[in-house]
Amino acid sequence: MTLLVAGWVAIDEIETPFAKVKNSLGGSATCAALAGALFTDVRLLAAVGLDFSAEHRASLERKAIDLAGLTTEPGETSRWGCRYHYDMNSRDTLYTVVGVNENWQPVLPAGWEHSTTAFLAAGHPVLQRNIIQALKAPAATMVDTIKFFIDGALPELRETMRHADFVAVNESEARELARTPSIAKAGRALLAGGAKGVLIKLGEYGAAYLSGDDYFVAPGYPLEEVIDPTGAGDSFAGGFLGYLDTVREITPAEVRKAVIYASAVASFQVEGFGPSRMLTLRRDEVEERYREFRRFTHFEAWDEAIE
Amino acid sequence: MTLLVAGWVAIDEIETPFAKVKNSLGGSATCAALAGALFTDVRLLAAVGLDFSAEHRASLERKAIDLAGLTTEPGETSRWGCRYHYDMNSRDTLYTVVGVNENWQPVLPAGWEHSTTAFLAAGHPVLQRNIIQALKAPAATMVDTIKFFIDGALPELRETMRHADFVAVNESEARELARTPSIAKAGRALLAGGAKGVLIKLGEYGAAYLSGDDYFVAPGYPLEEVIDPTGAGDSFAGGFLGYLDTVREITPAEVRKAVIYASAVASFQVEGFGPSRMLTLRRDEVEERYREFRRFTHFEAWDEAIE
Repeated sequence: MTLLVAGWVAIDEIETPFAKVKNSLGGSATCAALAGALFTDVRLLAAVGLDFSAEHRASLERKAIDLAGLTTEPGETSRWGCRYHYDMNSRDTLYTVVGVNENWQPVLPAGWEHSTTAFLAAGHPVLQRNIIQALKAPAATMVDTIKFFIDGALPELRETMRHADFVAVNESEARELARTPSIAKAGRALLAGGAKGVLIKLGEYGAAYLSGDDYFVAPGYPLEEVIDPTGAGDSFAGGFLGYLDTVREITPAEVRKAVIYASAVASFQVEGFGPSRMLTLRRDEVEERYREFRRFTHFEAWDEAIE
Repeated sequence: MTLLVAGWVAIDEIETPFAKVKNSLGGSATCAALAGALFTDVRLLAAVGLDFSAEHRASLERKAIDLAGLTTEPGETSRWGCRYHYDMNSRDTLYTVVGVNENWQPVLPAGWEHSTTAFLAAGHPVLQRNIIQALKAPAATMVDTIKFFIDGALPELRETMRHADFVAVNESEARELARTPSIAKAGRALLAGGAKGVLIKLGEYGAAYLSGDDYFVAPGYPLEEVIDPTGAGDSFAGGFLGYLDTVREITPAEVRKAVIYASAVASFQVEGFGPSRMLTLRRDEVEERYREFRRFTHFEAWDEAIE
């Protein structure tokens, strides 16, 4: 069982009202890969430039992530700078350096076509679809995206969503894609568009999951201190697929568990800058938080509840 | 068992992007009373003016709400006009006519001091506290408030909160009261201030409950169409206390059930203008929605979840 994660590895500069980091290991594929590695074997398909440090590479290797697909291209590693506002729920992108991702054409290393699950982190939908189509018999694939591709490559994105088992979008993206303020309606519209399962990430409020015959919602973890929200959605995706990669059969009950594992991992992600908390996080801490989620969402069933 | 609801009865004018109503029965006490009446006997303590119509009074009487405490004062019934923005999550108050509530001094009708539960809808914290203190042995009291009193009567409000079993605030009020963007931290701060249980209403995202030894979170109901969010928080409160008024003992498990009943009732409230949906809502519809809440929040416990 192996989770393939494809997307951007980047170098980030992040400023919050309380602190600032430079040259931080970042990128959506990075966060997802590190989260997935808590559960299963992970393969990383991404491009970096000649400036990508041995130290950053070692951070990924220490988590036993297979880097055979992490190619070094002539040019610069992608870079991203952002500044968060006081409430941490909104941010300004200060700059984006696309670097080697400008012309990256992902090629699966030999044998990777047999990956059992795959996460296509935000990237051009045609590249995402090519990777999905190169897989022989994946048990689950998930596509994420960002506003940039909703605005600039919508028909291709819709086509790619039809090829994925799960589509992950955040709340504002869901609303934009479906042109409705109702999250429930937006989720239904995405399903009608061909996605088999839709995960709507609600930030601090948790996440909702919709499929043709299921609806599930997980709350956010009640964190008292958020250090840096960057990458929460990607570690959510990595946790979701990482867990699903380990189950015998992907049933609705397993998908619900995966949403909780994903929420637990994402709640740790925001406890540190970039994916730094993922580098120290242990599986037993995730399991403990799973139990906490259960404790603070459980209530008695109706037949227990009536007098 | 009887729920006492004290606060404003008003006449509203509400405009959403899709429709507009005038002369609508409104006021926070009205919505809470109608919601509570789904579960238990309700007594309404409020003041209206000479202009309050027989039709509006009949709407309350048809739900068997005891109106012995609904006094008619010389002057005008309170009036409120508002306009919602496109996403229904924000609104502008167009006008507030305080009317008879300017000088209202609530007096409990004989016997009402034995009410078993009480909801003090938004109002001056000194009036709220006087009512709580007039009760002989309430099983549960809850105080709600609005920004107006947080800004204008904070020391009195804090004192009143110490006298209540439950404090209900919405998210922005919680943040303002606690001066922190973290909801979890804001809830803890309110507990530290003396509230025994804190309900933080998260609008479409649901509600969180905190006490000294419990944390619980309920999601929002996935409504595809919101007609009018006015009064959702008040019907939440009415549903919460209405249910608790019926239980033998207020245990943590019963409080959790009450939060779900409250969420279910509030989800119906927003399906119509003002409290109009409350006028037709049946208890069995609430029970069915309770079961839905259970279905879309349930996931397997950790010991079932591990392989």
